[in-house]
Amino acid sequence: MEELFIKMVMDAWHTSLKRTEDLLNNLSDDALKKETATGRNTGVYLLGHLAAVHDRMMALLGIGEPLRPDLFEKFVSEAENKNQPTSSIPDLKAYWKDVHASLNEKLNRLTPEEWFQKHTSVSEEDFAKELHRNRLNVVITRTNHLDYHRGQLIYLKEK
Amino acid sequence: MEELFIKMVMDAWHTSLKRTEDLLNNLSDDALKKETATGRNTGVYLLGHLAAVHDRMMALLGIGEPLRPDLFEKFVSEAENKNQPTSSIPDLKAYWKDVHASLNEKLNRLTPEEWFQKHTSVSEEDFAKELHRNRLNVVITRTNHLDYHRGQLIYLKEK
Repeated sequence: MEELFIKMVMDAWHTSLKRTEDLLNNLSDDALKKETATGRNTGVYLLGHLAAVHDRMMALLGIGEPLRPDLFEKFVSEAENKNQPTSSIPDLKAYWKDVHASLNEKLNRLTPEEWFQKHTSVSEEDFAKELHRNRLNVVITRTNHLDYHRGQLIYLKEK
Repeated sequence: MEELFIKMVMDAWHTSLKRTEDLLNNLSDDALKKETATGRNTGVYLLGHLAAVHDRMMALLGIGEPLRPDLFEKFVSEAENKNQPTSSIPDLKAYWKDVHASLNEKLNRLTPEEWFQKHTSVSEEDFAKELHRNRLNVVITRTNHLDYHRGQLIYLKEK
């Protein structure tokens, strides 16, 4: 039963990730530089944002260190600053690729038992009362976060 | 263990639903009539779209009939037609409320065993090979769909 549930959650994660990657691969650099809506985040910022949030998942899950903690500051802690030069798109796309290769490889190695252990931002004491705050729950919430921003990135695609 | 999975999935569903409702309640009718981005769906259409998709969940889960099948045609089968008069916002908000009251009441009554049974759009034969195509999986995918459109509706909020 644990394995079935892990499959359900991981299937949803990989589906959203693939849809996002397919979309990103089909957007030109010029399209990515545009705002997703007037006055809102650009595609470049959302690309960096999603990669940095997923990079941070490794620490949250206790399975690795972030590859680029500096990008968390730039793309998560700080809002987009359109007056600052943005990171280069090829660099961000390489970062995206590295993060997901590393993260997905580590996720694939987790055992069912490990999936249902607590993540690192919940205390032992709280976890004893709230067993749903486990590693697998992090993937559920991150999949929802990914789809939230995918709904915005789609606006860069020509109709 | 089943009950823990169900709680994880239902918590994510209720979190996304509450965030969407809080957002919808904070948007004026004038804001809802606007396009979420230039040339894209209006808030009114997305309100109707989400309510109609959730209305249809009752049939998909085999727990009830849709309240308004005609709205599925208008808000799901057909793309938004901005030359046609839109449904009234109070009517759509009342529909939203009725759908979620009915749906959530029915979801609350499902037993753990029923959650892991197949949904109605998979055959017995396919389900025997693909046990993840159960009722709970429908809630996972619909939560992702909800967050996808919530990421668009947020653009109606003034910055």
